[in-house]
Amino acid sequence: MTERTLIKNLAAREDGAVTVSGWVETIRDQKKVQFVILRDESGSLQLVRPRPEPDAETGKSDDIAESISALTLGSFISVSGELKHDERVKLGGIEVKIGTLDVVGKALPENPIAEDSSIDKRLDWRFLDLRRPEQALVFRIQTTFEHALRTYWVEHDFIELHTPKLMASASESKAELFEIEYFEGKAYLSQSPQFFKQMAQPAGFGKIFEIGPAFRADPSFTSRHATEFTSVDAEISWIDSHEDVMKLHEELLVAGFAAVKAKHGAEIEALFGIELTVPSTPFPRIPLAEAKQIVADRGYVVPRADADMDPEGERQISAYAKETYGHEFVFLTDYASSIRPFYHMRHEGDEGLTNSYDLIFNGTEISTGAQREHRVDVLIENAKDKGLDPEELDFYIDFFRYGVPSHGGFGMGLSRVLMLMLHLPSIRETTYLFRGPNRLLP
Amino acid sequence: MTERTLIKNLAAREDGAVTVSGWVETIRDQKKVQFVILRDESGSLQLVRPRPEPDAETGKSDDIAESISALTLGSFISVSGELKHDERVKLGGIEVKIGTLDVVGKALPENPIAEDSSIDKRLDWRFLDLRRPEQALVFRIQTTFEHALRTYWVEHDFIELHTPKLMASASESKAELFEIEYFEGKAYLSQSPQFFKQMAQPAGFGKIFEIGPAFRADPSFTSRHATEFTSVDAEISWIDSHEDVMKLHEELLVAGFAAVKAKHGAEIEALFGIELTVPSTPFPRIPLAEAKQIVADRGYVVPRADADMDPEGERQISAYAKETYGHEFVFLTDYASSIRPFYHMRHEGDEGLTNSYDLIFNGTEISTGAQREHRVDVLIENAKDKGLDPEELDFYIDFFRYGVPSHGGFGMGLSRVLMLMLHLPSIRETTYLFRGPNRLLP
Repeated sequence: MTERTLIKNLAAREDGAVTVSGWVETIRDQKKVQFVILRDESGSLQLVRPRPEPDAETGKSDDIAESISALTLGSFISVSGELKHDERVKLGGIEVKIGTLDVVGKALPENPIAEDSSIDKRLDWRFLDLRRPEQALVFRIQTTFEHALRTYWVEHDFIELHTPKLMASASESKAELFEIEYFEGKAYLSQSPQFFKQMAQPAGFGKIFEIGPAFRADPSFTSRHATEFTSVDAEISWIDSHEDVMKLHEELLVAGFAAVKAKHGAEIEALFGIELTVPSTPFPRIPLAEAKQIVADRGYVVPRADADMDPEGERQISAYAKETYGHEFVFLTDYASSIRPFYHMRHEGDEGLTNSYDLIFNGTEISTGAQREHRVDVLIENAKDKGLDPEELDFYIDFFRYGVPSHGGFGMGLSRVLMLMLHLPSIRETTYLFRGPNRLLP
Repeated sequence: MTERTLIKNLAAREDGAVTVSGWVETIRDQKKVQFVILRDESGSLQLVRPRPEPDAETGKSDDIAESISALTLGSFISVSGELKHDERVKLGGIEVKIGTLDVVGKALPENPIAEDSSIDKRLDWRFLDLRRPEQALVFRIQTTFEHALRTYWVEHDFIELHTPKLMASASESKAELFEIEYFEGKAYLSQSPQFFKQMAQPAGFGKIFEIGPAFRADPSFTSRHATEFTSVDAEISWIDSHEDVMKLHEELLVAGFAAVKAKHGAEIEALFGIELTVPSTPFPRIPLAEAKQIVADRGYVVPRADADMDPEGERQISAYAKETYGHEFVFLTDYASSIRPFYHMRHEGDEGLTNSYDLIFNGTEISTGAQREHRVDVLIENAKDKGLDPEELDFYIDFFRYGVPSHGGFGMGLSRVLMLMLHLPSIRETTYLFRGPNRLLP
């Protein structure tokens, strides 16, 4: 490895010899002295070099001075030199006097994106867009958030699964299914790990989790939809109702937000102007029907024929939860069976409602959870009730024919959580490489 | 949640009231007493109930006795009763006297698989196959192994990525590419995160990792190939050569194996008869050409026209490493350019060799790693040299046109590591749901 010191670690070092590596952020090529601002994954640093007297004959300075003058913005360089603490230096009170300079990867002179480029243009050049400190921070936060969730799961004896993304049939609606040429036949891309994470319950795994891709052939262009997204899933046995799933879900989010705040809270405040709140438990819970009434009382009647919410309704009920409970999260519970899939368990004694919930965070839905119907006869009836052919679902219903515990779980969109956590306008900002109907590149 | 005690925790509890939940493994329905062996995710337990005197009129015992008699193997039940320590009980010296019994998910009477069922039959009924304790252990080991790797990465300041699996073109060979109907056009399934994990280097991320699915339309039916597999990937900036990648790779494997041995060593010995070895570092390194000579000297001439190894050659060199260095791992290094992709960096001064390696574990290749070519002009030449059209690769070559550090990384097949760690005959045993040319179900 190049023996380099991360820029963030320089301040604590004594003056003396040091090597730093990163990319060129700005150059001030003055007559008497040359300045370069170097950035690496940890911060930025002023490099300095007094320009030697020009050669009397050629009028040129020495090789290093020439090579600094020839630097292009964005080039990756490695510099050895002398670290010096000097409180007059605005950038962190330190600078490095250039001794040797090695241009490892020279950049073309024209940066194709600028501060004010559209999101679409920025996505075309995502690898440059990601150099912005706030963009890199998004993925450091993602790393910390996921690791906190997984650590919670591992400490609570969950098993990590990698369910297959190649399927013989749909896992959700047939409408948004990607079809694949699969040797002599067809396969489909998994829309969610739903069936396979449930399969772990009759397998006796008890508690499982998965963070992996899911695919929807969804032609919409909203700020919160993608054709490929990272789904955070958990499924647990021996629950009494969806309440047990919500409890798990809350605890995970608290673990995730606490870890992010502890590690990145100051940076989030500096770069996004947000003071992160670790949510308190229990999160507020409002039955969907009641939520719609609350929203109506606030003057917004959800313009839908069915029992569901719409995005404005979600914003309204979220605002209500914030005003009433001071909480950024709210569980909407007991969705009508008519707007839930056949595998959500219905209320005992009220077929019209399900043991299910959506989780709303800062105005937008981030997750759906439910207790699953594990009784084979009821499951078949519910499938028929939805106009589905139970024979087509046989491979799935089989999972429950040889014994199964009660169970439930949730699926949550990772990029949505990050978007809403950081008050960003679109999941395009919180997805490493966004995929939509018009976007497969880079 | 059902307030249940995990079976593994019963031994430490005092005698008294307890609830246990799991599935029925065996039933001994005797005249005087009824026995049930119950299994949950943590172990198995004897349940017992003296049969009450039969009713004088009907000749039947009471309801609970009837319901025990009617139990089918595999049914999930919840039992409340009295825990009693009794060293005469062979199964752990404890039993639970049944007080109440709740059949939560009744199983069909005929188990479609048996101890001696073929692997193919077992995969048809994978959710039942996974109830075998050694199968569940595989996925507990997977969980521990992955978490140890991720913890290493997080502690070393790596960023976790989720690269897209939907691509506009091939990431490796065009031969094994799955094609998808993508709205009005076509998309392809990612064969590896290669291009996108490299993209993080010019993005200035420094060090990244990903564990996610990769897809190969590979028609082969060997014990080590699948059409979908979980790929463990890392990529780091500022390396001097592939040696830096191998060092990282070794440290990760040591962390993973140490964690697995600490947590599951005793169970692995009990269920698989294997004493797990945590590998020592450095792993042996043998240049490929030398390895082929060693194998030839052992009497096996690799029957290939090109410079590559074959599976028998891998077994032979692995046996050599075991005999000579007492090591289960061996790096084969410096592969010929002719058998490596265009993006592997070639030796300075010897175009014929690359800064690359394969890692062999217990006789089988589990990983390929390399330093990448980051110099645009050389990269284009190497692509041409491979008969590729650099224009088709433009979106990828663009990553390096605006500045890039030196970098490299590896990709490793998770199921292969587990298969070879546990001396299992096929990755079908170490994949949650195997996918092959003939298998998309369940």
